[in-house]
Amino acid sequence: MSSSQFARFVGGDVGDWAIERTAPVRGDGLPPAARLSIVEARGREEPLGVRWALSGVAGHLRYVNAAERAILGARQEGLGRREATRAALIPIRKTAAWWDLAQDERRYIFEERSRHIRIGLEYLPSIARRLYHCRDLGEAFDFLTWFEYAPQHAAAFEELVGRLRETEEWSYTEREVDIRLRRLDPAEARED
Amino acid sequence: MSSSQFARFVGGDVGDWAIERTAPVRGDGLPPAARLSIVEARGREEPLGVRWALSGVAGHLRYVNAAERAILGARQEGLGRREATRAALIPIRKTAAWWDLAQDERRYIFEERSRHIRIGLEYLPSIARRLYHCRDLGEAFDFLTWFEYAPQHAAAFEELVGRLRETEEWSYTEREVDIRLRRLDPAEARED
Repeated sequence: MSSSQFARFVGGDVGDWAIERTAPVRGDGLPPAARLSIVEARGREEPLGVRWALSGVAGHLRYVNAAERAILGARQEGLGRREATRAALIPIRKTAAWWDLAQDERRYIFEERSRHIRIGLEYLPSIARRLYHCRDLGEAFDFLTWFEYAPQHAAAFEELVGRLRETEEWSYTEREVDIRLRRLDPAEARED
Repeated sequence: MSSSQFARFVGGDVGDWAIERTAPVRGDGLPPAARLSIVEARGREEPLGVRWALSGVAGHLRYVNAAERAILGARQEGLGRREATRAALIPIRKTAAWWDLAQDERRYIFEERSRHIRIGLEYLPSIARRLYHCRDLGEAFDFLTWFEYAPQHAAAFEELVGRLRETEEWSYTEREVDIRLRRLDPAEARED
């Protein structure tokens, strides 16, 4: 995608997604909140009852090469599919040691050793994802990954995150929180 | 560098650098201003008489590989050398076509075809530089490069920017402004 897509994920009292679980995986967690709203513009007023807010930008590819992009493009599906009523928001901060590496060293650990892209490919098109970068924004995390899937793929999703957390790349994770969500139907969403 | 270094470059009536020239190279320019101040913290109040303000983050390496980093590290000198009283601030925005490329395609154009790193190496240690990223910040530019050099290296600096503007990489530049500066001595800087 050539244009940068800003998004602010706000945990609070309102929003189209119910937060079912907020678990610290490494380092500090986040305060519990009932709902998540996603605001796709900078500088907007915060929704009511904000417990936490995480911003990021989905922009250009940082590690994916042209051949991988072609395979990903052929297999992946977009966000917002009607049946994809389950989601996960996983904010991650990596260590200083990771950011001290040169680009080729990070790519080598990311894919040649940890097979991050190839593992993700095995779960396409069931599990759709979008990566948001936030390191340059001065946020507490470096990335936010948003995943969407249908309830029947929940076990596959657990397997995917489990495999990624066993990789060498994951050893550079300094802080991670795992937030699981369920999309509310319009009637539920109005019941505030 | 493992930590991200935020900076806001503010063109206005105050600051330690006199702006000697502000020239559009491609696309829209910037309004003229007399002085430049550099604010190294987010969310600070703006200095007086602001004409323009450009923020960026100097963070991890985006294209440089480990071997190149070692050579750069051995040859380059830091900013703030006493004799380096000349500077250039060059904000650049690249085209959508650039950002649509995968990482390996951008690296290939950047270095294997355009020799961006190797050209810069020829001018070390005379010309010190720091690159700030601003694309994720929602700014009008994608990068800001800050160069510092002594007056006797001004001709070498002209040659460097001329060579970089002849590369294939440069054809992906959509907007560029070239701002030239002179560091004021403390007595001059107080004469506001």
